[in-house]
Amino acid sequence: MRICRFNEDRLGVVAGDDVVDVSAALAALPQLSWPLAPGDHLIRNFAGLRGAIEQAMTTGRRYPLSSVRLLSPVANASKVIAAPVNYALHLAEAQADTGVNFGSDIKTIDHYGLFLKSSTSVVGAGEGIVLPDLARRIDHEVEVVAVIGKECSQVSERDALDYVFGYCIGLDMSVRGTEDRSWRKSYDSFTVLGPYLVTADEIADPGNLDLSLAVNGTQRQSSNTRALIFSIPKLIAYASAGYRLYPGDVIMTGTPEGVGPVVDGDLVTSSVTGLGTMQVRVVSSRKRSAA
Amino acid sequence: MRICRFNEDRLGVVAGDDVVDVSAALAALPQLSWPLAPGDHLIRNFAGLRGAIEQAMTTGRRYPLSSVRLLSPVANASKVIAAPVNYALHLAEAQADTGVNFGSDIKTIDHYGLFLKSSTSVVGAGEGIVLPDLARRIDHEVEVVAVIGKECSQVSERDALDYVFGYCIGLDMSVRGTEDRSWRKSYDSFTVLGPYLVTADEIADPGNLDLSLAVNGTQRQSSNTRALIFSIPKLIAYASAGYRLYPGDVIMTGTPEGVGPVVDGDLVTSSVTGLGTMQVRVVSSRKRSAA
Repeated sequence: MRICRFNEDRLGVVAGDDVVDVSAALAALPQLSWPLAPGDHLIRNFAGLRGAIEQAMTTGRRYPLSSVRLLSPVANASKVIAAPVNYALHLAEAQADTGVNFGSDIKTIDHYGLFLKSSTSVVGAGEGIVLPDLARRIDHEVEVVAVIGKECSQVSERDALDYVFGYCIGLDMSVRGTEDRSWRKSYDSFTVLGPYLVTADEIADPGNLDLSLAVNGTQRQSSNTRALIFSIPKLIAYASAGYRLYPGDVIMTGTPEGVGPVVDGDLVTSSVTGLGTMQVRVVSSRKRSAA
Repeated sequence: MRICRFNEDRLGVVAGDDVVDVSAALAALPQLSWPLAPGDHLIRNFAGLRGAIEQAMTTGRRYPLSSVRLLSPVANASKVIAAPVNYALHLAEAQADTGVNFGSDIKTIDHYGLFLKSSTSVVGAGEGIVLPDLARRIDHEVEVVAVIGKECSQVSERDALDYVFGYCIGLDMSVRGTEDRSWRKSYDSFTVLGPYLVTADEIADPGNLDLSLAVNGTQRQSSNTRALIFSIPKLIAYASAGYRLYPGDVIMTGTPEGVGPVVDGDLVTSSVTGLGTMQVRVVSSRKRSAA
């Protein structure tokens, strides 16, 4: 199933080139009260909602997918976890480019561990990337994203994929500089997730997915998750050894070689096998404020 | 007002040596549904709840503060933001101690920016610090914590304190090593907040608060927020220039000199002018699992 959130927080299921509005199914969600359990309420309760969603699909209004404004399919992640330097050829380019490494000797994920991005930096494809007014280089990084489905801790590599709810494309936007990753990569709109979330049953092998990114039609990044240094199961095991994972926690698996700057007006197009194609517009915050 | 969360998610107001159970007031909170606005629902709606809380105080059951199990007064932070190397004398000790710096040339907050801790690492004083089974040095860092009350972005230093809901004591527990701060400081239970949350109207000058920490009765850290490199208003302005802040967002303002390791069985006692005294027990995860 391909799940999306669109327009004014409508819940949708993608069917071919259409989105079917299944928001009626949300009435079946359990009530919420303070304090909240960490994570995404929809993903936590999705198994119990499937019947209501399938029912809603028979009567829900249909829209062309291209006509809706896509929001992030994950609304309330308790953590956005990311993997630094997790493709060997990205390591090589980061070591060679002082505009990326800022004079520091770049090492691999073993050395850095994982890092966090702010959950408030998450947007959907239709919201766009807003560039902060910094006069600094701001790069695109395309990634395959795994979204956790079940609360877990101390998961083995062997069992790790059992805890994945689904997959989507992610953009890990990054200001280059000396600051900690968790600061440089957490500006509002710096985590784009989408175009929709594909449930895990539809992805036969997340360890063999092509991923690519183009800016204004020119290809910049192209690789396959076979080239990951820490595989997706290893990332989940590593993360869950440190902290408990909750439904909706986002694991961004790292970017391959080809990272580079974006500027106001750019159109960023990214694709991953089985996860669709995502188009995202870049706009400067100065223009956004003036608008 | 001194607000706490205790036992099985009861809402309390601290009055002298007692806690008054004011959970009845929670019925006045607006209903919640998916997707959730980021942040803490209680803090977001606190102004509208004050009357109901004052009403509940007249009839609520009273407990000795020492008899309850204190949870974190902030239940649902969208971000736990922290300030690296924000006291000059802590900078000096970090530069001198290879057990802290792991061979890297430690700089100040200007160089590193801010960093994130996982919101799922937050616990209260009564939950205790659980040491992961790592055979690594794990240090205490006591901090003054500001909790955001109103959604904001691009706040000036001059207006920054208007956005603070309240203050509490924080422990920023830290594994030493080469990994990113957002990984080393995000293990479950590595952010202790408490003992309760003191609303901002009770703290005349957050820029002049003594803070101290003792382990098993021996003082290890002692300073005053006058010694902060980035003041609390400057931290809020700096943070809000990068990302939108939401009610319940936690700003840990940095630790002074005197950091050092804790081990299984330690009792960590921290105090801040006007924010009370917080006692937290340290336990190894091996013992916790065996129990």
